[in-house]
Amino acid sequence: MKILSFESSAVSASVALTDGVRLVAQSFQNCGLTHSRTLLPMAEALLNCCGYTLEQIEGFAVAAGPGSFTGLRIGVATVKGLSLPSGKPCMGVSTLEAMARGLEGFSENLCCVMDARGGQVYNARFRWENGVLHRLCDDRAIDLQALGAEIGETTQILVGDGADLCYTRLIKSCPGLRLAPPHLRFATAYGVAMAALPHLLQGKGVGAQELDVRYLRPPYVAQPRPQKP
Amino acid sequence: MKILSFESSAVSASVALTDGVRLVAQSFQNCGLTHSRTLLPMAEALLNCCGYTLEQIEGFAVAAGPGSFTGLRIGVATVKGLSLPSGKPCMGVSTLEAMARGLEGFSENLCCVMDARGGQVYNARFRWENGVLHRLCDDRAIDLQALGAEIGETTQILVGDGADLCYTRLIKSCPGLRLAPPHLRFATAYGVAMAALPHLLQGKGVGAQELDVRYLRPPYVAQPRPQKP
Repeated sequence: MKILSFESSAVSASVALTDGVRLVAQSFQNCGLTHSRTLLPMAEALLNCCGYTLEQIEGFAVAAGPGSFTGLRIGVATVKGLSLPSGKPCMGVSTLEAMARGLEGFSENLCCVMDARGGQVYNARFRWENGVLHRLCDDRAIDLQALGAEIGETTQILVGDGADLCYTRLIKSCPGLRLAPPHLRFATAYGVAMAALPHLLQGKGVGAQELDVRYLRPPYVAQPRPQKP
Repeated sequence: MKILSFESSAVSASVALTDGVRLVAQSFQNCGLTHSRTLLPMAEALLNCCGYTLEQIEGFAVAAGPGSFTGLRIGVATVKGLSLPSGKPCMGVSTLEAMARGLEGFSENLCCVMDARGGQVYNARFRWENGVLHRLCDDRAIDLQALGAEIGETTQILVGDGADLCYTRLIKSCPGLRLAPPHLRFATAYGVAMAALPHLLQGKGVGAQELDVRYLRPPYVAQPRPQKP
């Protein structure tokens, strides 16, 4: 099944074309440019460079959350726009699961973290065993200190745009923390595709109008500010 | 140091922009199209999507061999062409080392293999320890059976376009063989960049005219055919 997948939940962005588990093409960038400016041109360049057209795509996948509110909306809106004319199925997946799927083959525990501001991270933990990804907790927004207490001295590979923050703030109390290698540190569209593939194969894809973002919290800017003492 | 790197030693092709060890952008494709048609458009699209120009690039890197004779020449010729006008330094690196650098963080032995035809593979073996890549043998062309005898029952992660061939032909006698995950199975330009970075930083880059491919064998088509009995 040929899937075109999008990941734009934080500062980096990527697009991937997959056929089953095979990676046909992927473009990734982490240069700070606005996704609204880069995501569609990346997809167009990727298809052009491979000699593929949108007609050949059988389904669409996108990192639907958690993540940056604007980034998620751009990714989801892009997939809605691409799938609406043809009615081809869409699948929104967990950004944190997509990160973990990029580290297939790693034998350590994976701790996926995105900076959720206000002292919190979006987090889920995973572990690969015999080629199967096991989820160790639900996606959640959690205080950094609470995550540190949970991790303790266990070995954990940090993945995601919150990895540096987590490492810097928790390494003293959590000496088993390790940073994922730089090229695997961020979610990629290949990980999104692999998270979506089993659902799309089972016919569980949704229409463009049903596809939606999955925020774990209301937007930071809309939250009540802490009162000054 | 900002490096633009190219990998086109087999069927897949990729281009990466790195800044130190940080991956700024990467495009990868494995769709069977001719590298002479795809490599430069990929590089152009990558720079455009990131808002970078060639003037900002401080060095060039390329997988210089072993690999497909035509693929290597296209990669090396592209880098020569890009670096000649500015005189910026170039670095050719081992394709097999570039593969191993893509699997940073894996704790198993890495067995990098490219199909060299005629019952042989291009091969080198590596191991990551505490963030440092150790080379366990020189790049070589070796008979599959001899490689199988050397591996024996040890655990080895197979990487490269010869991984499937190796797995299929040797799994009975080498039960410790594992295939690298699909998205890390092939050399990438990020791996090329990481292999080149220390050399370029030490001022060991060469000029466009000195850059050359590193074949391990004369071209297959030029070798004497086995005499019929």
